[in-house]
Amino acid sequence: MPSIETRLKDMGIDLPAPPTPLANYVPAVIAGGLLFVSGQLPLGRDGSLAPGHRGKLGQDLFNEAGQEAARLCAVNVLAQAKLALDGDLSRIRRCVRLGGFINAGPKFHALPAVMNGASDLIAAALGPQKGRHARTTVGVAELPLDAAVEIEAIFEIEPE
Amino acid sequence: MPSIETRLKDMGIDLPAPPTPLANYVPAVIAGGLLFVSGQLPLGRDGSLAPGHRGKLGQDLFNEAGQEAARLCAVNVLAQAKLALDGDLSRIRRCVRLGGFINAGPKFHALPAVMNGASDLIAAALGPQKGRHARTTVGVAELPLDAAVEIEAIFEIEPE
Amino acid sequence: MPSIETRLKDMGIDLPAPPTPLANYVPAVIAGGLLFVSGQLPLGRDGSLAPGHRGKLGQDLFNEAGQEAARLCAVNVLAQAKLALDGDLSRIRRCVRLGGFINAGPKFHALPAVMNGASDLIAAALGPQKGRHARTTVGVAELPLDAAVEIEAIFEIEPE
Repeated sequence: MPSIETRLKDMGIDLPAPPTPLANYVPAVIAGGLLFVSGQLPLGRDGSLAPGHRGKLGQDLFNEAGQEAARLCAVNVLAQAKLALDGDLSRIRRCVRLGGFINAGPKFHALPAVMNGASDLIAAALGPQKGRHARTTVGVAELPLDAAVEIEAIFEIEPE
Repeated sequence: MPSIETRLKDMGIDLPAPPTPLANYVPAVIAGGLLFVSGQLPLGRDGSLAPGHRGKLGQDLFNEAGQEAARLCAVNVLAQAKLALDGDLSRIRRCVRLGGFINAGPKFHALPAVMNGASDLIAAALGPQKGRHARTTVGVAELPLDAAVEIEAIFEIEPE
Repeated sequence: MPSIETRLKDMGIDLPAPPTPLANYVPAVIAGGLLFVSGQLPLGRDGSLAPGHRGKLGQDLFNEAGQEAARLCAVNVLAQAKLALDGDLSRIRRCVRLGGFINAGPKFHALPAVMNGASDLIAAALGPQKGRHARTTVGVAELPLDAAVEIEAIFEIEPE
């Protein structure tokens, strides 16, 4: 089976150098064989939030742009995981859970469709076995920087 | 002590065949001795969302209907756990955590009362020792299908 | 390195006797080497919610009061952890993750600044190594008792 790095390359994805949190927390923590990744925003490679990934789904942006934002959150989740694993993504045994928080305008219920942008990216990058995860998707009132989506993750990892 | 299956029977609960997610994720994942169950909606046995379990608490439905919806989410959580454990609920050591997301209308703060519908079901089904769990309850802006409640869970399980 | 108890003393913090949940759930559960603490509200030592820690950020209260509320949630998280560890905070190996739910008014996006009230408290109480955690911060529609903030936590603990 192709490695996660090979899959990412085939998908044309070059993981960014992820941003450092500007506060008393870290992007990821390993405990009990699990890697917990902090909630990631759809920040671009330059660390900024594109106007198209800002605001409320169903009001300021719509399904496809929301999926793109969710996909970008998932790319940043993988970038943080790689950093936490000293660059070695092959230590990922599987993705256990994604938590998806969608910045939802009134009566926007197509939350799972938006979240699929992240689930599809993880499934494609990790492959069918490692990539299938549990997930919870909810629509929230506000997100940091008025981002359209925020995604956190738990991975199971190989012991060092 | 009666088994979880016996308790469910005594409660008149026949766990449904749970729905398969129509996307790149799975209903539950086992990792590190923990079983993570994806967020479950209050879908009925036929897989549909009853009108009475739809909309915002304090606006479209009220405490008792909300508790019923939360209870139904918890039944679906158990159904997914059973499926993930190859039908053997006796492998559940305890319920570790429930996460409750309530579709809350303006100024609806009785979120814990709604969530009790789920906690009471889990406590009754698993018994006083295995059933007592940590939980987090929040009111969200929107939920998939405009469901009134969504509940995710973590269980500790016996090794195979 | 100073103990967590010493650090708390130096910070002038005397952990309260935490409130018992009035429902079928518990404040904290230990499983798989992890301690899961239920979502905590910014309740004071007397168990009541101060008017200044109630309502929506950006509408009823503002950044500094929000940070105070988040800090108080974190104090209550530690109080629950201490209770679950039979009074022995030295069993905490590290804080793994904080989940922050901010009661956010329209267009309030300074959620991370509010959440820093909790992250700073945990970092100061546990010290730089044990205190650095992953975190997820989102703005929710409503919280129990109309609290301004709710915070849940996962700690890694030493085996007994």
